[in-house]
Amino acid sequence: MKIVVDAMGGDHAPAVVVDGAIQAARDLGLEIILVGQREAVQPELDKFDTAGLPISLHHASQVIDMDEHPAAAVKAKKDSSMVVAMDLVKRGEADAFFTAGNSGGALAAALFRLGRIRGIKRPAISTIFPSQTKQGYCFLLDIGANADCKPEYLVQFAHMGSIYAERVLGVSNPRVAIVSNGEEEGKGNQLVQETAPILKASGLNFVGNAEGRHVPGGLADVVVTDGFTGNVIIKLAEGVSRLLMDVLKEELTSTSVSKLGALLAKSSFDKVKSRLDYREYGGAPLLGVDGAVIIGHGRSDARAIRNGIRMAAQTVENGVVEAIVQGMT
Amino acid sequence: MKIVVDAMGGDHAPAVVVDGAIQAARDLGLEIILVGQREAVQPELDKFDTAGLPISLHHASQVIDMDEHPAAAVKAKKDSSMVVAMDLVKRGEADAFFTAGNSGGALAAALFRLGRIRGIKRPAISTIFPSQTKQGYCFLLDIGANADCKPEYLVQFAHMGSIYAERVLGVSNPRVAIVSNGEEEGKGNQLVQETAPILKASGLNFVGNAEGRHVPGGLADVVVTDGFTGNVIIKLAEGVSRLLMDVLKEELTSTSVSKLGALLAKSSFDKVKSRLDYREYGGAPLLGVDGAVIIGHGRSDARAIRNGIRMAAQTVENGVVEAIVQGMT
Repeated sequence: MKIVVDAMGGDHAPAVVVDGAIQAARDLGLEIILVGQREAVQPELDKFDTAGLPISLHHASQVIDMDEHPAAAVKAKKDSSMVVAMDLVKRGEADAFFTAGNSGGALAAALFRLGRIRGIKRPAISTIFPSQTKQGYCFLLDIGANADCKPEYLVQFAHMGSIYAERVLGVSNPRVAIVSNGEEEGKGNQLVQETAPILKASGLNFVGNAEGRHVPGGLADVVVTDGFTGNVIIKLAEGVSRLLMDVLKEELTSTSVSKLGALLAKSSFDKVKSRLDYREYGGAPLLGVDGAVIIGHGRSDARAIRNGIRMAAQTVENGVVEAIVQGMT
Repeated sequence: MKIVVDAMGGDHAPAVVVDGAIQAARDLGLEIILVGQREAVQPELDKFDTAGLPISLHHASQVIDMDEHPAAAVKAKKDSSMVVAMDLVKRGEADAFFTAGNSGGALAAALFRLGRIRGIKRPAISTIFPSQTKQGYCFLLDIGANADCKPEYLVQFAHMGSIYAERVLGVSNPRVAIVSNGEEEGKGNQLVQETAPILKASGLNFVGNAEGRHVPGGLADVVVTDGFTGNVIIKLAEGVSRLLMDVLKEELTSTSVSKLGALLAKSSFDKVKSRLDYREYGGAPLLGVDGAVIIGHGRSDARAIRNGIRMAAQTVENGVVEAIVQGMT
């Protein structure tokens, strides 16, 4: 199994990417091809003892920056790490691609170079989201690829999400819900009102509308929404958690008794952070393109990079792309 | 100042509503008219010593239940507490209305009986939302009245929200943002992309796009969105907070050391809950209808009812309806 990794992608690239890639090669036995500017990546590689590790460097002279316009950057920078890496997957020289870079860029590069799976109207960016399901999370999509959606897109997201949840996350017969502004049947904006009946008749295990509280509440294993709402959901969850933790920290340091309490409870706080931490999961699968592509968080540390690469390998191992192709025929 | 209160509205009505209304009459010196079924409300009133308190009971024979279809129920039940209460406001026999009942019903009753303020396209349900602004919260609207919106609705929400934030919440020159799936100018779904330029040119203190994390993050004092997204936001925040607290509780009770820590830190946890608690605020102003209407949470306890009634009084005192009327001319 060969995974191609964007050495230039992410807020702390290439240092943490190289670190995480080496962890993946060493711990998981995966063959890694780092793609990026040799002059930037090689010095980072030289900091580690990589003797005997299946890790190599493939030069690409250009970089797509975090704040560049995705489509324009992908078109202009044919020798960027992202475009070069996608081409390696396209040509079969690698089995999957991982990047913690510009997610719009990854989407555009995947669309231009790998293309959509035949029959798929729009690809979706998906993610693991902490939730009180049996497995401790749900699978949420789309979280940003398509700000405006049509019912048929959402229905395809539901199918792709179910395939991923079943094959990679090991959830059998995953419960599917659609995000809405009320749990009752018939509630929703126009898009949801049109989509829900199609999902109900789709043969998927559709359990109905999920209000915002049901997403972390564990109502469904696969939660479908448009990319605008999905993006608001993941970023709001991040913001609410931070607010809660900040207010808690403020209160806990307000008296010496509570300070002592906080000290004694510290390992619990750390465990909570870890249970709700995106770094445990490592990445967001881009579903619907003709190849295995995982997008990591820009703020990923080395452990998140390692886990994202593992996720890419699991996506290949479990034949997600092939299953989506088959589902479309 | 006379506030008419829906004695039949809310999960724990009429008991907690009567309790909260009495608190408002006693603590805040407000004149309260309870509207509801005499046979249900009078026994609750009799449990308290109301001698000398400015509180009265106005009989209404019908009730709009929490799960009834709003518009149909309002049309069919002309002698429901909500419709009767709205008529008291309409006729000038009361200055404002508070209900913790069916929010769709309150919206429908307000539209049928009070009507919209001239020039207002759509009323909006708004709420205080915990945020790291100077005042500790932002003002969010719409949270559910309009699942599908047009740009002109959102622009009016921004104007009404600014008026409320300035007059009732005491925020001078409130910063206004629009919820989007990216902070950069030009990001958004079609609705946001069309609305943002109008807000920019509106004369309001528009600070741009707010990602989900910026809503609790304190970027803006008034946060505008469509009723679908706004509803997802408030319910997701509720769900994420609950998940965090549940996971924290689970971890804190996992060892005896952490249990002791949790015990010592208990007052801090309580303070966090109270700082983020909707009951502190008490209600969601319905803006754009021709009268002061506050909708409380269905799960409101007596303190939340009291605070919601106070909010109704503040809305009247600060001339919110008149200011919106003036802004429209």
